[in-house]
Amino acid sequence: MTAFDRLLAFQRETEALAQIAGRLGWDQETMMPRGAAEQRGDEMGAIEGVLHARRTDPRVADWLAAAEPADDVQAAMLRQIRRGHLRATKIPADLAQEIARVTSVAQGIWAEARRTEDVAHFLPTLTRVVDLKRQEAAALAGNGGAYDALLDDYEPGATEAGVAAMFDGLRPRLVALRERILGSARSPQPLEGQFPKAAQMQLATELAAAFGYDWSRGRLDLAVHPFSSGSGNDVRITTRVVETEPFNCIYSTIHETGHACYEQGVDPTYLLTPLGQGVSMGVHESQSRIYENQLGRSRAFTGWLHGRMTEVFGPLTVRDADAFHAAVNRVQPGFIRTEADEVHYNLHVMLRFDLERALIGGALEVADLEAAWNDRFRRDFGVAVDRPSHGMLQDVHWSVGLFGYFPTYTLGNLYAGCLHRALRAAVPELDAHLSRGDTGPATAWLRARVQQHGARYEPREVIARACGFAPTEAPLLDYLEAKFAEIYGL
Amino acid sequence: MTAFDRLLAFQRETEALAQIAGRLGWDQETMMPRGAAEQRGDEMGAIEGVLHARRTDPRVADWLAAAEPADDVQAAMLRQIRRGHLRATKIPADLAQEIARVTSVAQGIWAEARRTEDVAHFLPTLTRVVDLKRQEAAALAGNGGAYDALLDDYEPGATEAGVAAMFDGLRPRLVALRERILGSARSPQPLEGQFPKAAQMQLATELAAAFGYDWSRGRLDLAVHPFSSGSGNDVRITTRVVETEPFNCIYSTIHETGHACYEQGVDPTYLLTPLGQGVSMGVHESQSRIYENQLGRSRAFTGWLHGRMTEVFGPLTVRDADAFHAAVNRVQPGFIRTEADEVHYNLHVMLRFDLERALIGGALEVADLEAAWNDRFRRDFGVAVDRPSHGMLQDVHWSVGLFGYFPTYTLGNLYAGCLHRALRAAVPELDAHLSRGDTGPATAWLRARVQQHGARYEPREVIARACGFAPTEAPLLDYLEAKFAEIYGL
Repeated sequence: MTAFDRLLAFQRETEALAQIAGRLGWDQETMMPRGAAEQRGDEMGAIEGVLHARRTDPRVADWLAAAEPADDVQAAMLRQIRRGHLRATKIPADLAQEIARVTSVAQGIWAEARRTEDVAHFLPTLTRVVDLKRQEAAALAGNGGAYDALLDDYEPGATEAGVAAMFDGLRPRLVALRERILGSARSPQPLEGQFPKAAQMQLATELAAAFGYDWSRGRLDLAVHPFSSGSGNDVRITTRVVETEPFNCIYSTIHETGHACYEQGVDPTYLLTPLGQGVSMGVHESQSRIYENQLGRSRAFTGWLHGRMTEVFGPLTVRDADAFHAAVNRVQPGFIRTEADEVHYNLHVMLRFDLERALIGGALEVADLEAAWNDRFRRDFGVAVDRPSHGMLQDVHWSVGLFGYFPTYTLGNLYAGCLHRALRAAVPELDAHLSRGDTGPATAWLRARVQQHGARYEPREVIARACGFAPTEAPLLDYLEAKFAEIYGL
Repeated sequence: MTAFDRLLAFQRETEALAQIAGRLGWDQETMMPRGAAEQRGDEMGAIEGVLHARRTDPRVADWLAAAEPADDVQAAMLRQIRRGHLRATKIPADLAQEIARVTSVAQGIWAEARRTEDVAHFLPTLTRVVDLKRQEAAALAGNGGAYDALLDDYEPGATEAGVAAMFDGLRPRLVALRERILGSARSPQPLEGQFPKAAQMQLATELAAAFGYDWSRGRLDLAVHPFSSGSGNDVRITTRVVETEPFNCIYSTIHETGHACYEQGVDPTYLLTPLGQGVSMGVHESQSRIYENQLGRSRAFTGWLHGRMTEVFGPLTVRDADAFHAAVNRVQPGFIRTEADEVHYNLHVMLRFDLERALIGGALEVADLEAAWNDRFRRDFGVAVDRPSHGMLQDVHWSVGLFGYFPTYTLGNLYAGCLHRALRAAVPELDAHLSRGDTGPATAWLRARVQQHGARYEPREVIARACGFAPTEAPLLDYLEAKFAEIYGL
């Protein structure tokens, strides 16, 4: 066996163990009994310790030094292994294991605090998590920026300064669009009524299939905060149901289906190799957001969905398909990021980005976080946060140590804007398909252009190759302005 | 840190990883999408490899040599670690990993073969499993018996010869009892009707709680072959539902609750130590069987259950509580072990014991197994097997490599008979509680006498300590003869 073969065989087991750790995370949020939280912390710590030991195994460095890639695919595999090895060797094993243990328990405490609207219950734990993540960032950063070091784990190649510049480019046109919409004379009405849970879940099942989810390699369950989990042949999605707000379940499901189809769509020969999963969170989010928004919230698709929902739930409170489309895309300064319209969504992300980089950089302490959140929210959204679960307790991310993750959501939106422009050019009759509930041509194009490559190309490269142009924010802004001009008669 | 402390800290992580591997097994039979079977084989192989590496870690031998136990509890911990280390060091890592990989895939193939009644679909895989288990047995046995080596993993201290002698002691009185019952003029009628799935699951939930299952540290799901899984604070049970046969769900649930209460009842200070779980399969089965049979199928408890089922399902087809009790305990030569009455059950086990020791010993080959099964079944039960799912495809065990496991079921029955005699002496008013659906005094006695000890004492020792006498087959036979004499008027 060559050094490359030995390295890949070793890596294959590491990838399999990482899948197991990921599935434990899925279990924790969907199936685990509440009394198991403490024990689960020990379990997560143990498997994280095993993964860390494998990623830092000295033999990996030797194999990496000796391995000679036969082609570009093998070179990409080595790039991915090298990146993981370098990151892992910089983090002390004790710290990695402590982060796994603490965040596993912290997640339960966060969920409890959120349920009881009790920020104080969460603060000591969050303080500990932030402290550990600062230590991790310091270990990783060397002479570089602490926040950059964390961001790089989710979006290789991205930097705090680059993201901040991009956000500065997006913000003015977004804020202007928001003000024109809120000043418009039109005021789309929401969809009202009771939508029974079982029927919503049945529709969610149907929608996932319509967007290409392979049910033989996945399943759908309920979770407080919907997510997708796993790679290859075991990719599970979750959703949530509110009986008075069916779009919550519907668009959470389509969103997670986008993530899952990325994972299910990777070239099967990459299974359990370093290329066998999505390359970054930003590219991941580009898939979930284009499924959810550019496809799922298009006039063509909502026309079909209006008909299907009428069949499933009986007559709706909205007048016709146009009013239904406006209800789906209603712009409102709400509290919850995951329920936000396409205009406000990125403002939610910018708020979190600024707070979390201040937390990691040390300019903000956890004790002052709630005040900082509420203050910034009032300035950006013009509304006061009325309860912690509508404010800083709404997202799971910080409890599980995901600092540097939030900006990838907006990066994903930007990539989705680019992909959508290229997709429309490649499939000019797209709306005719979507108006029949048929996403096939769109999802086939995304699979061929993005999903199948897994981690074969770097994030910006895979988007640029798919689109034929380098990613910029203009396509997203053009799309949003055109779409909402029509709905709001701007 | 002393050698003992180092060893225990290392072992704690091993136990946590073993919990993870066990939960993957649970997931595989309850949640996993079908298309994930092959990938899951890789995952199971990877974590089994990690566990094997830890169990054979040379440092364990060093620590074991240097560790000095401060008391009997620490001595018992060392005994358990030493046993696991010795077994593991005898099995080559490649073989352990191959067994994990093959049996993970084999389980799916078995389920498919069982569903389609296609023995040929399963035989190549079973041949491979048997071959691997023969290799394992040879590696473990040294100069001893191959089957002994496998049996010892499930029931430390038991031997093929000892089990065969015990079965020889049981068999004549069992066969005589069976013949008297089948020759009796009385013929209890079965319970008939449709029992909706949702109501059965609701009743199962209630029954598990009634038998002391802690719902905050567990959950109930459906599985083809019901089982209990996990230790400490995450102990999950499964059941199955047939709408025309409610006793299937009810007694599967009570049975698995017995297993789960053993695990949940272990002294919490033993959590993630070598004493933190049941000591053997036989002692485990003593708990599940005493819950299911001596308690759950008693006249006193079925009197309460008759009333509760009438409330849940409406009027039943049986005349009164006596007829209900007779229906619950109806003796019939059926095909399925897990549905067998208390008289036939041990005959099912003896059949499997004789076939599997012939397979492992080399006196029987997999190609001849179906004929051997069907022939023996006709001789023991007087009925011809009508389809493979009623014959050699009915049980999951062999597909997942569990050879040497079946006899522990009958050992468990024997222990349950002993515990029941001692329990009746300790709690003379037991029937008054059971007739109100209150199992509390019985389960509290079992928890104090057996469950809390986990793996603190060796199997026969914990039973002898609980009962005040050495385990024998007489109490079980006396109990069965008295019970069925009353029901069948013998």
